[in-house]
Amino acid sequence: MLRVMNERAVFGEIFRLGKVSRPELAQATGLSKPTISMALADLERARLVRPIGLRTGNAGRAALLYEIRPEAGWVLAVDVGREFVRLALADLVGDIAARGDERRKGGETPAELVARLGELTRELADEAGAALEDITLTVFGTPGIHDKETGSLQLAPNLPGWERPGAIELLAGVVPDTPYIVENDVDLAAVGEGAYGLGQGVDHFALVWIGTGIGMGVVIDGKLYRGAQGAAGEISYLPVGEGDPLVNRGRGMLESVASADGVVAQAARLGLEGLTSAKDVFDAARRQDPIACQVVAAESDHIAHALAGVIAVLDPELVVLGGGIGVQAGDLLIGPVTGRLRDLVALRVPMIKASTLGTEAVLLGAMAVGLTTARDLVFERAVAQAPPG
Amino acid sequence: MLRVMNERAVFGEIFRLGKVSRPELAQATGLSKPTISMALADLERARLVRPIGLRTGNAGRAALLYEIRPEAGWVLAVDVGREFVRLALADLVGDIAARGDERRKGGETPAELVARLGELTRELADEAGAALEDITLTVFGTPGIHDKETGSLQLAPNLPGWERPGAIELLAGVVPDTPYIVENDVDLAAVGEGAYGLGQGVDHFALVWIGTGIGMGVVIDGKLYRGAQGAAGEISYLPVGEGDPLVNRGRGMLESVASADGVVAQAARLGLEGLTSAKDVFDAARRQDPIACQVVAAESDHIAHALAGVIAVLDPELVVLGGGIGVQAGDLLIGPVTGRLRDLVALRVPMIKASTLGTEAVLLGAMAVGLTTARDLVFERAVAQAPPG
Repeated sequence: MLRVMNERAVFGEIFRLGKVSRPELAQATGLSKPTISMALADLERARLVRPIGLRTGNAGRAALLYEIRPEAGWVLAVDVGREFVRLALADLVGDIAARGDERRKGGETPAELVARLGELTRELADEAGAALEDITLTVFGTPGIHDKETGSLQLAPNLPGWERPGAIELLAGVVPDTPYIVENDVDLAAVGEGAYGLGQGVDHFALVWIGTGIGMGVVIDGKLYRGAQGAAGEISYLPVGEGDPLVNRGRGMLESVASADGVVAQAARLGLEGLTSAKDVFDAARRQDPIACQVVAAESDHIAHALAGVIAVLDPELVVLGGGIGVQAGDLLIGPVTGRLRDLVALRVPMIKASTLGTEAVLLGAMAVGLTTARDLVFERAVAQAPPG
Repeated sequence: MLRVMNERAVFGEIFRLGKVSRPELAQATGLSKPTISMALADLERARLVRPIGLRTGNAGRAALLYEIRPEAGWVLAVDVGREFVRLALADLVGDIAARGDERRKGGETPAELVARLGELTRELADEAGAALEDITLTVFGTPGIHDKETGSLQLAPNLPGWERPGAIELLAGVVPDTPYIVENDVDLAAVGEGAYGLGQGVDHFALVWIGTGIGMGVVIDGKLYRGAQGAAGEISYLPVGEGDPLVNRGRGMLESVASADGVVAQAARLGLEGLTSAKDVFDAARRQDPIACQVVAAESDHIAHALAGVIAVLDPELVVLGGGIGVQAGDLLIGPVTGRLRDLVALRVPMIKASTLGTEAVLLGAMAVGLTTARDLVFERAVAQAPPG
């Protein structure tokens, strides 16, 4: 028992410190040098850490250094969106060994999508020089909320078919016989923002996602806040905008007006012809097209009203705008949104910034979640399997 | 150092367990019996605990029992509202020894109010048999947000005069030379709800306060969540209701339509004559007055829209309705509010209940905050003052 605890502590410190010597580990853990040596021997035998040669430094004898064996585990991160799937395969220290993005065919069934994800995963594993069985854990980011009782996705109108009972369980087929986690994509993006983006070191922030869908990930005290039903941050259901909320069941009211589709529809309604994507509309606004500018003004107003609700409830330090529209059009939106908010919020308007993680945010968040879990998993397995040394 | 730590642990366990014997304390703390005896002797000498005689029980020898000396500290809780001030003085174990409620005179300046609170406090101390100097700590609950930089209250239109720089510091005069805490009243009510009301044992809940003002206290993971500027839950600034938010600066939009004044104004506008309080309007609705019923329907709709925003962002397990309207009219409002919410929220409507703490919620929350802090304060003082025994 004590031995396992010591090994766990040493393993954790090597993750934290990177390349590290026995004396450094003794100091970091408070354990004696013989205990460190024993733990390292066990971890090396379990193929979780490896020696990497000597560090010759300024003072004293050269120290033998240890590091995590990167191939001791692999994490597959999968971002399942309406238009794209994105995959990344990383080793246990988080180095991404293979990446794959693919535009989705329209009208795929869940089973067809899972089969395609399985093929892409095999290609990634080949590229990384890993076997499928080496994958420790897969983390899927999807729109909507994973209802564990029915094994389906709720509130994910952009992924038709996945609302059927049991659909989520099909994801087990992507990497057979391997644990997997399904998380809301925007929640993962918020985790990614906290781990690698603008949320680093910020206690309370909100990632507001504006793209094909609209959502929010809430970080409180540095931790993802999911709410009682996993639905915290479902701001597409904020009662904002002109429409009657009953008209657009399935999609929230805000989503129906402010998502990429909403922007394109609004542009068409105002007479801007031939633009098929929100990006086209924002590009036209950058060229000072008056109708496109009007659409941007309306979009800013919708976003400001949504943020006013978010700020009234959460009072965050920082609001990060993510998603296709948040990232591509942040420069056009943040000024007018902030100006409008000055009239709508009680106190100071919090910082509002466009995410710098771009389309990678969900994938990076999935990787952050996956790496933490995978480290525990490989340790548990190694310790459970290893005979006492 | 170690001795202080042991004393603190023993002191904490006596609070938790009430009347307790040496062997029980040894078991609860994991400390040896001689250590417990030494800690008890020190705590007794510092007049923090006292022996209260023997417990003769089923097994073994009769055990000498110890308890917290209730008079080792006193907490004054003060709820400063627009229409009432309410005060409670409790001993260190939380027994309320004296209570005072007083309807406020209109137009008092902050200095006049502070003088009157001082008088009321002296009356309470007399009644409790305590001296003013015995008061360990005062906790004030007020509307708005305590801006520590300017020493003033922000967002408290119901307390005119308190927005001036330094006004809050006048509260130091209520109990001279005694530490005091100023907290938002609705935040305190949420703490009270968690400690003594419907929020007991609920991880994530919101207390929505509807009275002369409108606000919300947010509890996440069992802890009050204040936000980055202390403005979390300022839902009177939710962009809800028909009006233009710019029309009612100072008060939030929701507050202008859904507070007690809003209800009375709406009733007058619809032609209901001679009603001067929201309570009159709700009483008329209970008698099936058609105009009053129309006002209740409009009020339910406003509240439902506000809660839709709260639920979209926070996804709480429970929403407690507090404040004058929430408590008195909960029976009239909860049905229509829940019905309307079924159309507005993404998933299941959370439980919505009227607070059972009535007008005491703020005072109870102030007491809960005060007792926790006072326990630490009396211990620190006793330990800092006591010579080693």
